[in-house]
Amino acid sequence: MARVLVLHGPNLNLLGEREEEIYGWLTLEQINRELQQQGQAEGVDVAAFQSNHEGELIDQIHDARGNFDVIILNPGALTHYSYAIHDAVRSVNIPVIEVHMSNITARESWRSRSVVTPAAWGQITGFGHLSYHLALTAACHLIKSYQNGG
Amino acid sequence: MARVLVLHGPNLNLLGEREEEIYGWLTLEQINRELQQQGQAEGVDVAAFQSNHEGELIDQIHDARGNFDVIILNPGALTHYSYAIHDAVRSVNIPVIEVHMSNITARESWRSRSVVTPAAWGQITGFGHLSYHLALTAACHLIKSYQNGG
Amino acid sequence: MARVLVLHGPNLNLLGEREEEIYGWLTLEQINRELQQQGQAEGVDVAAFQSNHEGELIDQIHDARGNFDVIILNPGALTHYSYAIHDAVRSVNIPVIEVHMSNITARESWRSRSVVTPAAWGQITGFGHLSYHLALTAACHLIKSYQNGG
Amino acid sequence: MARVLVLHGPNLNLLGEREEEIYGWLTLEQINRELQQQGQAEGVDVAAFQSNHEGELIDQIHDARGNFDVIILNPGALTHYSYAIHDAVRSVNIPVIEVHMSNITARESWRSRSVVTPAAWGQITGFGHLSYHLALTAACHLIKSYQNGG
Amino acid sequence: MARVLVLHGPNLNLLGEREEEIYGWLTLEQINRELQQQGQAEGVDVAAFQSNHEGELIDQIHDARGNFDVIILNPGALTHYSYAIHDAVRSVNIPVIEVHMSNITARESWRSRSVVTPAAWGQITGFGHLSYHLALTAACHLIKSYQNGG
Amino acid sequence: MARVLVLHGPNLNLLGEREEEIYGWLTLEQINRELQQQGQAEGVDVAAFQSNHEGELIDQIHDARGNFDVIILNPGALTHYSYAIHDAVRSVNIPVIEVHMSNITARESWRSRSVVTPAAWGQITGFGHLSYHLALTAACHLIKSYQNGG
Amino acid sequence: MARVLVLHGPNLNLLGEREEEIYGWLTLEQINRELQQQGQAEGVDVAAFQSNHEGELIDQIHDARGNFDVIILNPGALTHYSYAIHDAVRSVNIPVIEVHMSNITARESWRSRSVVTPAAWGQITGFGHLSYHLALTAACHLIKSYQNGG
Amino acid sequence: MARVLVLHGPNLNLLGEREEEIYGWLTLEQINRELQQQGQAEGVDVAAFQSNHEGELIDQIHDARGNFDVIILNPGALTHYSYAIHDAVRSVNIPVIEVHMSNITARESWRSRSVVTPAAWGQITGFGHLSYHLALTAACHLIKSYQNGG
Amino acid sequence: MARVLVLHGPNLNLLGEREEEIYGWLTLEQINRELQQQGQAEGVDVAAFQSNHEGELIDQIHDARGNFDVIILNPGALTHYSYAIHDAVRSVNIPVIEVHMSNITARESWRSRSVVTPAAWGQITGFGHLSYHLALTAACHLIKSYQNGG
Amino acid sequence: MARVLVLHGPNLNLLGEREEEIYGWLTLEQINRELQQQGQAEGVDVAAFQSNHEGELIDQIHDARGNFDVIILNPGALTHYSYAIHDAVRSVNIPVIEVHMSNITARESWRSRSVVTPAAWGQITGFGHLSYHLALTAACHLIKSYQNGG
Amino acid sequence: MARVLVLHGPNLNLLGEREEEIYGWLTLEQINRELQQQGQAEGVDVAAFQSNHEGELIDQIHDARGNFDVIILNPGALTHYSYAIHDAVRSVNIPVIEVHMSNITARESWRSRSVVTPAAWGQITGFGHLSYHLALTAACHLIKSYQNGG
Amino acid sequence: MARVLVLHGPNLNLLGEREEEIYGWLTLEQINRELQQQGQAEGVDVAAFQSNHEGELIDQIHDARGNFDVIILNPGALTHYSYAIHDAVRSVNIPVIEVHMSNITARESWRSRSVVTPAAWGQITGFGHLSYHLALTAACHLIKSYQNGG
Repeated sequence: MARVLVLHGPNLNLLGEREEEIYGWLTLEQINRELQQQGQAEGVDVAAFQSNHEGELIDQIHDARGNFDVIILNPGALTHYSYAIHDAVRSVNIPVIEVHMSNITARESWRSRSVVTPAAWGQITGFGHLSYHLALTAACHLIKSYQNGG
Repeated sequence: MARVLVLHGPNLNLLGEREEEIYGWLTLEQINRELQQQGQAEGVDVAAFQSNHEGELIDQIHDARGNFDVIILNPGALTHYSYAIHDAVRSVNIPVIEVHMSNITARESWRSRSVVTPAAWGQITGFGHLSYHLALTAACHLIKSYQNGG
Repeated sequence: MARVLVLHGPNLNLLGEREEEIYGWLTLEQINRELQQQGQAEGVDVAAFQSNHEGELIDQIHDARGNFDVIILNPGALTHYSYAIHDAVRSVNIPVIEVHMSNITARESWRSRSVVTPAAWGQITGFGHLSYHLALTAACHLIKSYQNGG
Repeated sequence: MARVLVLHGPNLNLLGEREEEIYGWLTLEQINRELQQQGQAEGVDVAAFQSNHEGELIDQIHDARGNFDVIILNPGALTHYSYAIHDAVRSVNIPVIEVHMSNITARESWRSRSVVTPAAWGQITGFGHLSYHLALTAACHLIKSYQNGG
Repeated sequence: MARVLVLHGPNLNLLGEREEEIYGWLTLEQINRELQQQGQAEGVDVAAFQSNHEGELIDQIHDARGNFDVIILNPGALTHYSYAIHDAVRSVNIPVIEVHMSNITARESWRSRSVVTPAAWGQITGFGHLSYHLALTAACHLIKSYQNGG
Repeated sequence: MARVLVLHGPNLNLLGEREEEIYGWLTLEQINRELQQQGQAEGVDVAAFQSNHEGELIDQIHDARGNFDVIILNPGALTHYSYAIHDAVRSVNIPVIEVHMSNITARESWRSRSVVTPAAWGQITGFGHLSYHLALTAACHLIKSYQNGG
Repeated sequence: MARVLVLHGPNLNLLGEREEEIYGWLTLEQINRELQQQGQAEGVDVAAFQSNHEGELIDQIHDARGNFDVIILNPGALTHYSYAIHDAVRSVNIPVIEVHMSNITARESWRSRSVVTPAAWGQITGFGHLSYHLALTAACHLIKSYQNGG
Repeated sequence: MARVLVLHGPNLNLLGEREEEIYGWLTLEQINRELQQQGQAEGVDVAAFQSNHEGELIDQIHDARGNFDVIILNPGALTHYSYAIHDAVRSVNIPVIEVHMSNITARESWRSRSVVTPAAWGQITGFGHLSYHLALTAACHLIKSYQNGG
Repeated sequence: MARVLVLHGPNLNLLGEREEEIYGWLTLEQINRELQQQGQAEGVDVAAFQSNHEGELIDQIHDARGNFDVIILNPGALTHYSYAIHDAVRSVNIPVIEVHMSNITARESWRSRSVVTPAAWGQITGFGHLSYHLALTAACHLIKSYQNGG
Repeated sequence: MARVLVLHGPNLNLLGEREEEIYGWLTLEQINRELQQQGQAEGVDVAAFQSNHEGELIDQIHDARGNFDVIILNPGALTHYSYAIHDAVRSVNIPVIEVHMSNITARESWRSRSVVTPAAWGQITGFGHLSYHLALTAACHLIKSYQNGG
Repeated sequence: MARVLVLHGPNLNLLGEREEEIYGWLTLEQINRELQQQGQAEGVDVAAFQSNHEGELIDQIHDARGNFDVIILNPGALTHYSYAIHDAVRSVNIPVIEVHMSNITARESWRSRSVVTPAAWGQITGFGHLSYHLALTAACHLIKSYQNGG
Repeated sequence: MARVLVLHGPNLNLLGEREEEIYGWLTLEQINRELQQQGQAEGVDVAAFQSNHEGELIDQIHDARGNFDVIILNPGALTHYSYAIHDAVRSVNIPVIEVHMSNITARESWRSRSVVTPAAWGQITGFGHLSYHLALTAACHLIKSYQNGG
């Protein structure tokens, strides 16, 4: 069974408890559960992990080699300066989909630049928790095209 | 029946006939047909329009008022300087989803800035023609949540 | 009888129907009618034209040669990047008054730079629809000083 | 009777005696007198003040509270760096119209940025001494709309 | 017989009638006729087209596929911001020679950057109407080297 | 009893043992003890924590919710790039006072920009270990005004 | 008896009468009186002076030599461009504490840079009128350490 | 008898009492006296004036019209932002020589840009009080060449 | 016996398994073993440590005090933003040699700036794994010169 | 007989022996010979000179006064920083045509700026060795128009 | 007898023959002769050297060690990029006076930055050939103060 | 026998006689002799050349083709602007090792950028004269790996 890893970066553990007008009312647990349900419906196993530590996110990306087929990554504020995550994404042979819940280009100017995107397969931004679901849809498409010899 | 307008900007009429290593082998007609099939499956009417003229794209965005529920917009290279399209997107009351086939942050530096995104609902970038399908999926979600009173 | 051309750029056709807290509640038609009334009172013929197409605005500026004495120009968002309109303004021998309804320096940073102003006679900014009336007043002053041999 | 204060910043006392190709041949005294005549015709009292001292201009803006209905302000070269005047304009509850005689965007690059405009109601630029008259016309419009309950 | 398309951008229709100290005294029609004569002498068919509309220029570039062997392009002021023309040039398989009559690096600073050149075969700048003739000479060289199997 | 958390970022564990001409001769332990004494005198409980790990500092800020009334934060060099700490400060409902011992604007240019301050309540900079004591004084003021119903 | 001079820059005379959501409801007179009370409690004489004139502030800084032990300085908007005040602060041998009531880094971008801080002893920002009290506390600490031979 | 005005800007009244390693040990009074002696030797009357007020320096520059033949100006820190002094220098018909005692390009980066120099006749920088004497020598040369009909 | 610590930053654990055309085919373990052999030959003890966590690298640098004579540091992508590592390097009294395997100036522009180098003793860049050996040679030279009383 | 000087800057002596995919397979000697043949055909004498020394190129430009009618100049990499060559071009009264073989705007970013062009008559870029031939064609046109009294 | 070396950089050999409205009508030979006369009057030996070669100017600066007491240096356009001359000036123990004839801040923007000045003793700019004479006056002052034991 | 060329750029001839605190007390001759001794020990012939002339350094790099196996290059201050040396390094097929004695990133900001490094094999910076020895060690490694068929 194909496997997808969902990685959440710093402060995303507080989803649903902070700045709800920006990030919505769902908790991270609820989002993860919904993703697992979507995964089940599509025949894909979904695992999720959150950390406020850049190093742990990098470790997870490394450990995904051989264990996961696609990574869905919301780097949180690390998006804007963590070249180490950029390099981690490039150093593994797994497609990475970058996800943001808010429209990062419509807020403070420093939020509109992502140092991770150039290393990612694609980016989905601004749809609230739907961003994650679209990313999982994309992941399933990719997995199917691989399974079909694509 | 809900309606979605897909707008393609300059040079996208040449899809499948130019720089295929970047933009893929599907023609614009094929992409539009596939989107209409996806729409039918989801009970949504999909119309498509392409123009190399900034003014025609703005006219279309204006005319969408009252006629369409969501706009999927790939502004082509106008993405990087057309503040007039930015203002058109802001001046209508229809959610706009910005779409790019290539990972615009991984090419020339001027491609990584979009002047349209701050006015859009969200942005999907880098998945080839799958970018359009994800956008249509997002549009259908939105339409359903509206129909459900959301 | 002296003639003044009022040119409105992209998205101004939606005046009174969009972002009223910024642009006011008058429609473009109402503004044009009021300008024609002001013109009649001052013995000046006022014609108005709106387009979302940069090229049509340039064509109009060219065609004004020999037909109009002053041009009042609100380039809309083209203000911020259309060097082609800058060149059009410079290439005709007619004074051009640049007009903006909102205070463009008090909004997004990209709105505070106009590439058209250096080629214009003067600029009037921030007075809502009154901006147009002040421009027409300025145009009438200029026409009178010409008629008086100035 | 409504009252309008006209404030002239540094070096404007030399109008008519310096760089006439840029600033015209009228002296400041002549401009003030003409503005008072225009004011009389419109039933508005016009007072004028010039200073080369940033602090005195700020004092005048403060003292205008309760004494004047509109301020017409040509900050001279202070336009380009006096954040203190910006704050003074914002700290009083009187509409301020910024005025420049020359087209400041068509000269040295540092002249094209005004740090005062974001705090002003509107800006009129480039019409020579006519700039002041247009500002007074705008002031009278505003006063009338207030008197009419607007 | 080999074919060359000469495309003139915004405001070039006013050649010979505007800013003659910069652009010279020949009209566009005269330049086109001279180019056709030069073409005849070299056994090459020359067609010319002018538009103030970015979209029409892009349409022409697309339509040149299969119809022309070389494009000579003076994008006028679009040179400095039209990434859409850049992409059009890259999306067709025809060599494009960029031409400017004036020395664009010796005027306003924004004129010294061309966003089109990186996509062009080469650029010829500053020789007045001779710029076009040199471009046609280059085009003929290229055509001959192709015909000779180069 | 009200509680204040003092968070020290990277390298502050070496206080008193490094670059004493900049950071003074007191060790971190001595500073913490003095703050606890000041707290006791004001009836406030003071806890202190130091880490060289960005992630641990974010964890501490999160865990302070419900446990502490004010956070005093010296982010060390993370001040200059950790948008993740910025977001952590914004995501909790506790006032955060940013503290620096040295005058960070009088050293290398990169030290004069703090990415944390826009999310903080206030900033105290340059007073050596007194910076911490002033921050604690501010914290006590705030706590008292809350206790007094402010 | 030790003496502290409190200097308030442009527009601070309007405290309590302007933009209260930013600067609070206390008038300058009230703040000065409270500072004098705090001073009395600590055995320090506090004098206060406000001016909208950069030159008068510089004169006061110079005259403080021999008369005051510490200067508390809120330069108002001069903070952002008055290198002359920077030099005045450096040219006297009295410690200067820079004070701001609002969090200047969380407003317009030009407010986040202070040209005065590099010459000051320290900076206190964002605590409303409490900023002044913290500065006076710091001043008293310094005075005591001097009196104790520090 | 020809007359030269020496204008000293902010903080120069403290010469000889501040930062002597940069500005030397002579007081302003001593420098003025030496300049008057040099003037006497060359048959030129030298007057000197110092102010910490930008406005007073501008007033002095204006009043010099008709009274002085050359102005020697050390604008102090106003050098780096006072466009009002730039305009004052340009608005009078008297040659102005800009003088700095220290090598302003070898200190903080903001000191290396002078906004006054483009309006001045020439600039002398870095020679300590000798800078003033060289400026007076230049002034005398100019006066003589005028007297000789140059 | 003298001791050298070799610190490897984020993603270097994947050496030999990732982007081999840039980083070569040797694994980190092989490089460490070769360095230990070189150390043995020179009479120096070599210890190595890798981490993807900025905080652990800082901890290691701190712990090196008293235990190691030289640190060889390849900060990986942290090179480009970790001012915390910069400060760690400065806060210990041990010479630090910065090492990069690839020529970081010949890749993406953000790779050419190191925020660590200004705090290091020297930098060796571009020689593949030989970079480490040259650094160890430099370390041995330094140790010998110390042992010889230098 | 009219004379044209062809000047080649640094590293062009290696043409045909270096980076042939960029600069082509012809040696400098072959290009010079072909230019002389083209010159003979047009009745113009062509001399050529190459140097890796900026100073020698300047000397040659100076010595061309009185000896040559047009200079064709490929400054090599000096194009991007030699303001001394800019000044040399401006200081002689001979038209200078700047030539580049490669499309300098499509390579490293620093190659797209030429400090020489603003002083030149025109620039020809990107046509390989054909760039030189077009320049010589332009030179002959100019010479003929002079001989015809133009 | 004290000795002064006058060094003239690129293109200054054409003085009096080029752009006379900027550089005046005197030839370099005349200026050198006048400087030697001024030197004789002051008891100082003056030698002069001009070169268009950066390297020769550096050689001359080196060779001046032991042979000259002061260097007067007009680096011509090398002023704006030759860090090698900057280093040469710093590497010898002779005071260097930088001289420019034109007001380099009032021309193209790149002329207003000198990379040499931070290494020089002082700079004299804008006085035409008088700039050299003032520099020689400064040199003589310095020599006398040395001879007087200063 | 393999051969290594050591090239020293401008001002390095003064080593040991200038700014010894930065560059050390060894003369260039001593460094060259030591390098030759190191070379002899490793069986490699070492030749050295110094010039203050950019052109001569380029000539030497060209002439090294066929005569040397590796070039060790310290471009001195040319490091920061000589794109001509960059191109020379790229145009020859010999590995070039860039060397700096001082830590160029810890001095003036312009010293931290090298325009040569992107064309070099590697760079060694900050170790004083040891930088050269490390470079020679690197060169010998390379030569051996070639001799061993690498």
